[in-house]
Amino acid sequence: MEFSHQIRVSYQETDKMGVVYHSNYLHWFEVGRAEMFRQLEFNYKEIEERGVVLAVVESNCKYHAPAYYDDLIDVYVKVKEFKQTRIAFDYKIVRNEDGKLLTTGNTVHVFVNHNFKPLSLKKTDIELWEMLEENF
Amino acid sequence: MEFSHQIRVSYQETDKMGVVYHSNYLHWFEVGRAEMFRQLEFNYKEIEERGVVLAVVESNCKYHAPAYYDDLIDVYVKVKEFKQTRIAFDYKIVRNEDGKLLTTGNTVHVFVNHNFKPLSLKKTDIELWEMLEENF
Amino acid sequence: MEFSHQIRVSYQETDKMGVVYHSNYLHWFEVGRAEMFRQLEFNYKEIEERGVVLAVVESNCKYHAPAYYDDLIDVYVKVKEFKQTRIAFDYKIVRNEDGKLLTTGNTVHVFVNHNFKPLSLKKTDIELWEMLEENF
Amino acid sequence: MEFSHQIRVSYQETDKMGVVYHSNYLHWFEVGRAEMFRQLEFNYKEIEERGVVLAVVESNCKYHAPAYYDDLIDVYVKVKEFKQTRIAFDYKIVRNEDGKLLTTGNTVHVFVNHNFKPLSLKKTDIELWEMLEENF
Repeated sequence: MEFSHQIRVSYQETDKMGVVYHSNYLHWFEVGRAEMFRQLEFNYKEIEERGVVLAVVESNCKYHAPAYYDDLIDVYVKVKEFKQTRIAFDYKIVRNEDGKLLTTGNTVHVFVNHNFKPLSLKKTDIELWEMLEENF
Repeated sequence: MEFSHQIRVSYQETDKMGVVYHSNYLHWFEVGRAEMFRQLEFNYKEIEERGVVLAVVESNCKYHAPAYYDDLIDVYVKVKEFKQTRIAFDYKIVRNEDGKLLTTGNTVHVFVNHNFKPLSLKKTDIELWEMLEENF
Repeated sequence: MEFSHQIRVSYQETDKMGVVYHSNYLHWFEVGRAEMFRQLEFNYKEIEERGVVLAVVESNCKYHAPAYYDDLIDVYVKVKEFKQTRIAFDYKIVRNEDGKLLTTGNTVHVFVNHNFKPLSLKKTDIELWEMLEENF
Repeated sequence: MEFSHQIRVSYQETDKMGVVYHSNYLHWFEVGRAEMFRQLEFNYKEIEERGVVLAVVESNCKYHAPAYYDDLIDVYVKVKEFKQTRIAFDYKIVRNEDGKLLTTGNTVHVFVNHNFKPLSLKKTDIELWEMLEENF
């Protein structure tokens, strides 16, 4: 399944080249990911309250075309890989107005507790495991 | 006493007008404040480890002239007011190259614990109180 | 007239105290301001394309209570003062769930061109002047 | 050749997990890169003034261990690849205190002009080309 979420580019996110500074796309990936979880049974805040944190261990991003101030952009997210100890997401960022592909990327996350100790999700929280397995 | 600390403007901090986006000055105030504490007996990290947090309750800033990419700027900090429950700082941001005054401002902080409960610093941590009183 | 716009707090905006870092409120003020202009005849992007920039010369903010991760917040904006050379806005940020007042503040802006030269809006762009005057 | 530059972690860069939010490492890569250029004949600001922009087209990052508030970190940068149309950098971020490897990554940049048109650096700016070739 693929989820999408819309974001409006703000002034703060632009840089002196007149385009969005590249690290903001990682922030938008985060927002897209959170909105995807919200559409499932548990949102990401609840997942953390249940004792499970998705710590980022890897991010990769290709910048195809720049986003500009006030652009309305669509963040597409889908699960790329889902295992007992880790989950990976694929992202695609598209300008809404002209359908231009701006950025593609992925992030890899390990399941850890609030002390950053690795977890096997299936053993730690079977309910969350099943919710995720069902949807991905 | 007045302390100063030097910061180099990065690309991320600029916006599409080619100048530093205004909220970054609040970040620089934070950095200046932390470097001021570092020059005293306790740095800010240690202050928090002792159980005292300086929660920001007010910030005021006047933007006199823009900072540009790669500018070397000097952040000047001094204590404006120091009481049992609160501390306020005055800031002045100056471009190093030409001495141009870029920003002036202040922040007000209350002493709270890690649960955001207000503290009387003198009663909670007399050692820290005396260290601050001696220097300000 | 008062306008409002809704924002969802992201992970990036939080800090190690578990609350939103204070400079983000200035960013949200910007977003609220832009959304207010969007609801009028010209959005802020178009205003800049017409050659008028609203350069921030002052910001003041009181932090009454912290915003938390994933909070849905309402940014209320209204024009506080509108003159030929400057415009000021008042802001109020409220947590949607419990109506808690989180932040109040204001920003002052001067009308300048793309070279930061001050403008009299009425002389430079009577159409924009009238649009703003009508609404504020 | 490998260059290094020291950065102090600020409060703003932390998130509610008590660690540095992952997108900040891309910002630190930028700072490290700029400081590397500064140690050569032209700094990055001058490169842009000469009409050459290093537009980011790819970033990859592995997060090995978290950075904490007030950590002093060392950003190591070296050129990974240097061609007429593009340049790539490798980064390594290490906590100064204990030598712990926190992050590794790379970025790929194409040479473009201020309108984002691709350039052959050798044809466009032979002096800059030779300066870079000599050092990398």
